[in-house]
Amino acid sequence: MTYSYISHLYCPKCSNTYSAKEQHHLCVCGSPLLVDYKLDEIKAKVTREEIAGRTHDLWRYHELLPVEDEQNKVSLGEGMTPLIAMPRLGREMSVENLYMKDEGMVPTGTFKARGAAVGISKAKELGVREFAMPTNGNAGAAWALYGARAGIKSTIVMPVDAPLITRNEVALSGAKLYLVNGLISDAGKIVAKAVNEHGLYDASTLKEPYRIEGKKTMGLEIAEQLGWTLPDVIVYPTGGGVGLIGIYKALKELKVLGWVTGDLPRLVAVQAVGCAPIVKAWEEKKAESEFWPGSASIAFGINVPKALGDFLVLKALYQTAGCAIAVDDQVMIEEQEKIAQLEGAFICPEGAAAFAAIRKLRESGWIQEGETVVALNTGAGIKYPDTVKVDVPVLEIGDSLDGKVTN
Amino acid sequence: MTYSYISHLYCPKCSNTYSAKEQHHLCVCGSPLLVDYKLDEIKAKVTREEIAGRTHDLWRYHELLPVEDEQNKVSLGEGMTPLIAMPRLGREMSVENLYMKDEGMVPTGTFKARGAAVGISKAKELGVREFAMPTNGNAGAAWALYGARAGIKSTIVMPVDAPLITRNEVALSGAKLYLVNGLISDAGKIVAKAVNEHGLYDASTLKEPYRIEGKKTMGLEIAEQLGWTLPDVIVYPTGGGVGLIGIYKALKELKVLGWVTGDLPRLVAVQAVGCAPIVKAWEEKKAESEFWPGSASIAFGINVPKALGDFLVLKALYQTAGCAIAVDDQVMIEEQEKIAQLEGAFICPEGAAAFAAIRKLRESGWIQEGETVVALNTGAGIKYPDTVKVDVPVLEIGDSLDGKVTN
Repeated sequence: MTYSYISHLYCPKCSNTYSAKEQHHLCVCGSPLLVDYKLDEIKAKVTREEIAGRTHDLWRYHELLPVEDEQNKVSLGEGMTPLIAMPRLGREMSVENLYMKDEGMVPTGTFKARGAAVGISKAKELGVREFAMPTNGNAGAAWALYGARAGIKSTIVMPVDAPLITRNEVALSGAKLYLVNGLISDAGKIVAKAVNEHGLYDASTLKEPYRIEGKKTMGLEIAEQLGWTLPDVIVYPTGGGVGLIGIYKALKELKVLGWVTGDLPRLVAVQAVGCAPIVKAWEEKKAESEFWPGSASIAFGINVPKALGDFLVLKALYQTAGCAIAVDDQVMIEEQEKIAQLEGAFICPEGAAAFAAIRKLRESGWIQEGETVVALNTGAGIKYPDTVKVDVPVLEIGDSLDGKVTN
Repeated sequence: MTYSYISHLYCPKCSNTYSAKEQHHLCVCGSPLLVDYKLDEIKAKVTREEIAGRTHDLWRYHELLPVEDEQNKVSLGEGMTPLIAMPRLGREMSVENLYMKDEGMVPTGTFKARGAAVGISKAKELGVREFAMPTNGNAGAAWALYGARAGIKSTIVMPVDAPLITRNEVALSGAKLYLVNGLISDAGKIVAKAVNEHGLYDASTLKEPYRIEGKKTMGLEIAEQLGWTLPDVIVYPTGGGVGLIGIYKALKELKVLGWVTGDLPRLVAVQAVGCAPIVKAWEEKKAESEFWPGSASIAFGINVPKALGDFLVLKALYQTAGCAIAVDDQVMIEEQEKIAQLEGAFICPEGAAAFAAIRKLRESGWIQEGETVVALNTGAGIKYPDTVKVDVPVLEIGDSLDGKVTN
């Protein structure tokens, strides 16, 4: 049985092609590479019914993933996160059919685990022994830990301001960890130098073509979990944008397979007001974004001043009649609290930004009455302890709550 | 279709019975109550094949759960956590068939979500509007958030030393949160007073009978995930012990249903050297434990000096030819690091204690060559940032890793 129907790598900018049997990073033209599959063969041999009976993780879609030998699969049970109905929040913002794809429920607590699982598995298949990457924290944590499971060494560079817990995850994995007094773009320059000088495998965002294949499984799962139908709108907090590019790629592949029909969902890229290069480019109808100077946001995962795949994100927005929208940090925090109080979900600020964007888009009429809307919550709130400020009364042993328990 | 085959509540000490249609807490004799089901009817009407095709969460076992009307289900997608093979760690400790049931991959990041989902759902069914509970942190976080989703108010009291992140989770849910300068037992006394004086629903460990039904699904899942066979040993980090009691109850129910056959697994209760009342009682062959004075452990979830259900835990150990064993805090920390480096899993100290116990039990010969062993990792390591100490080099913008990347 064929485990993967991977065909080759191709450049979405200049259409150059590359073998998937060797290590490749960027195209000679500087663009990220994408993976192509023999979709006709999959269409002929695999059915949705067959997939329904498989293991409940992202590997259920193995024909559409790049790993050719199942023995190279490096898995911690990632994928098939729940698609949770949000009825009370939905009523409050007049979006009756509101769902959250909860990516907090994966190893390492964020959706980065998907990219790491598939990226590390393929790196193992390609004989990689050691990789390097810059990170805003969560991707580094996922890659370092999956790397450890695969026996692949890693060098991780992250900003000093990255979430503290991600430092611990990376350090505990045995990776070589460095902090930089700067942004992820500064970490990227340090990694690029190390890659050149020491021949390490470059696992920077979109500089290896397989992470996106892991991320695309979010799109496959949303379709399957909605009974192989598509929602009207998918809303995604966008930093590097790999998840959005991946979801778009997944949905197009599903269309070719005939597993879904009709219009693709309108894709929405959500950014922070303090770092909104994609929003600016979209508003100006440009094909690429510009570096956003002095970027800042509490939603650290979307604090990416210039994404290598910006042109792919923008293309996905234009092609699906989607949009890009920026949310203020304070608004994210307020939305995060509303979601906890109405739906019992403690989500990350990036996820809260997605819901805040939905609220704004419904108010403006861009999202219409009765439309089905899926928000990606890209990680668990517990990874961001500092976004919540609490002032709690302290009792002594033997105290009582008299006069305190009733509001 | 009958959603639940719940029959009634019964006392495992004095055999008194109670209706499951009303709110009940402890038996008049002071013992916790357990839930009984019409297992004969389930056996006649439900098959394992039918369950295989259901939703991938703990509600797939709804006939064996206490919620009678599906409308009362309060769910965030909890359950069916992965059962992960640990081949490299297993080889290192000569336990070739070693598995981890990873309870970090649930809402709120710990197995407490199972008890909260079922406990809150049943509370909703019984018309509860407001509950109170003492907690070491994680249970309170789960109950407060599931309570919020159900529209049920909560009052939570936790030790000042409980993990900080759990404070944030509780506060964000809108619960009334209090800290106490003491242990969970001190929090328990404050809650008991509030329950008496204000008529709140008492959700303290084992003072409501339904949390255990949520926890028992870990046992159901382990059996199903092993193809309806049973492992030789199940190892569980034990504080209040509800999970172990639940797993034991689940496996006995599966035997009655005929869905599994053969001997039950030997159940192992793992505690910290600094808080080991169950271990002491087991070593002395006693039926109940004594309060452990001055208890202390970094594994906060098992820092329970006297568990209300101690006699049920001990009975499960005696009946399955299991054992109880204590692990030193420092040993847990070392095991936690080994697991991250060999298997890529960042687990909580309680989970690490379970693996450290397996290592000891294999060394002593209590676990034999070739036996299949399942360890419960009760929560994600990211909920315990302080257990990892890291010292990381800080670079300046433009620095290089020369002389640093090679060990």
